Amino acid sequence: MFVGVDIGGTNTKIGIVSKLGRVVAMSSFKTRSPREPQDFVKEIFANIEKLLHANDIQLENIEGIGVGVPGVVDNNGVVVNATNLKWKDVELKEIFKEYTTSKIVIGNDADCAMLAEWKFGGAKGAKNAILITLGTGIGSGIILDNKLYRGAHGTGSECGHMVIKFDGEMCSCGNRGCWEVYASAKALTRRTEQAVMQNPNGVLSKIVSQYGRASAHSCFEGARRGDSVSQNLMNEYIDYVVCGLINLTQIFHPEMFILGGGVAKEGLNFVKAVDAKLNDFLKKNNFEPTVLVKRPVLENNAGIVGAASLAMDV
Amino acid sequence: MFVGVDIGGTNTKIGIVSKLGRVVAMSSFKTRSPREPQDFVKEIFANIEKLLHANDIQLENIEGIGVGVPGVVDNNGVVVNATNLKWKDVELKEIFKEYTTSKIVIGNDADCAMLAEWKFGGAKGAKNAILITLGTGIGSGIILDNKLYRGAHGTGSECGHMVIKFDGEMCSCGNRGCWEVYASAKALTRRTEQAVMQNPNGVLSKIVSQYGRASAHSCFEGARRGDSVSQNLMNEYIDYVVCGLINLTQIFHPEMFILGGGVAKEGLNFVKAVDAKLNDFLKKNNFEPTVLVKRPVLENNAGIVGAASLAMDV
Repeated sequence: MFVGVDIGGTNTKIGIVSKLGRVVAMSSFKTRSPREPQDFVKEIFANIEKLLHANDIQLENIEGIGVGVPGVVDNNGVVVNATNLKWKDVELKEIFKEYTTSKIVIGNDADCAMLAEWKFGGAKGAKNAILITLGTGIGSGIILDNKLYRGAHGTGSECGHMVIKFDGEMCSCGNRGCWEVYASAKALTRRTEQAVMQNPNGVLSKIVSQYGRASAHSCFEGARRGDSVSQNLMNEYIDYVVCGLINLTQIFHPEMFILGGGVAKEGLNFVKAVDAKLNDFLKKNNFEPTVLVKRPVLENNAGIVGAASLAMDV
Repeated sequence: MFVGVDIGGTNTKIGIVSKLGRVVAMSSFKTRSPREPQDFVKEIFANIEKLLHANDIQLENIEGIGVGVPGVVDNNGVVVNATNLKWKDVELKEIFKEYTTSKIVIGNDADCAMLAEWKFGGAKGAKNAILITLGTGIGSGIILDNKLYRGAHGTGSECGHMVIKFDGEMCSCGNRGCWEVYASAKALTRRTEQAVMQNPNGVLSKIVSQYGRASAHSCFEGARRGDSVSQNLMNEYIDYVVCGLINLTQIFHPEMFILGGGVAKEGLNFVKAVDAKLNDFLKKNNFEPTVLVKRPVLENNAGIVGAASLAMDV
């Protein structure tokens, strides 16, 4: 048995995961970020022990603990940077080691999601695959030649900060025109807010007031209702998502992309539209074979399963 | 002994290369593109035989022949597409096989240059390194985890067609805003021509008339002479080059970039300026360690040595 810990900006999920990727039991608690890593890890272990106890498993019988973090993690288990948690150079592995002699592996959350899909989900058997999460930012996890790509320095990939619009809008990273400024869920929300301001009496405005606030969901909802403003926003958004996927295809030519994050949950039509637009371009450019665009199979549990998989791998 | 064949749009070079990457003898002839692959390979073998004869080496004693092609090559030695040669789906390996029983390996020219630098040049010992050639287009060769990255389908990387300006200028590939539209040597030449038209009496105009035509070199020359128009063009050009290198660092975080092609030969100052601008950005973004930017060590012979290396590897 393994333990997977999926640290999110809002919730932290803990799961007991079998070798075959099955979630035997899970629990979650509020991350309450920003907070001190020491105090936070203490709460994680209190929850792990509670979960193990409830399932009659001893901590000694856990073969390893994997931890997924929304940020940049190096090969030594140091969280170099995690903006949402407001952590910088946190020696997370060392703090975990104070509680257990089990194997501890710390990794990036998108890397975990990719690993879960590759070991137990829709990317099983793929030699090269890329998972992209469209959320507050854009995360990426890459399988190259049958293993997770970690870069020369173990810090993985940050595809969301690839520039797709030179001299474009400001990104939180300090650069301009990054992919996530245009293709994250947050970007779609921002565009929706702008559209509502310009069209205070339109369909989109009504949807937004109905839900109390604009979100990526509002625009999907508007498009489904046939609102042309929403549909235009949607098409523009799909173009931005596809632009990044074209870049990654030019660089990697993977077998498949897996599109995760809240936006991809909005329905198969979105993923289908992205797939059609990407492959239309690739066909014109003589790329063979086509590159599949899929939704994750594991959905909500991918974070826990992927984190646990980290400990299975190393 | 190995034979390396470096097919270029203008010249085709042939070399006898030792296991240690030393060019024992070489010759070259005009490619005279576009031409039929059959006829072209016949001329290549006539030249190989002449070269071997002059150096008292039997074709039977050649352990392998590697061929570098300016285009997309798949795992089966098929040239999927080589724009400058006007070739599409040419089974080049099969044609070579009609002349010899030696091992034949066909590869992309930038991949060859990367392989040469990695085996015998400035990237020796690097785990992850990326070679970029700034020429008519932008070529790329990538070493990942101690081997040449070929993609899921063996066709390697086309980093030059990564979009850096969404909805930007048209590229020959049919997409808009590709890196090579802004950062190839050809792009700098085009900008120089535009500047000359706008400033027919400026320093840059004089340089261009002196050489008979605009080239990337004219702008470098103008910048050296202190001409502000040339210096602005130069700075803008460096920004575009760095933009692509930032993207590749976000994705790969390699140990080093090797900048090849005619532009990089213009002097160490250009490469130094690119290195300074890239690392200034990376420092602000907490990338550690720094990413070196270097010129190729093997320069003109890299194509031949790299092609020969293909045959050493497989």
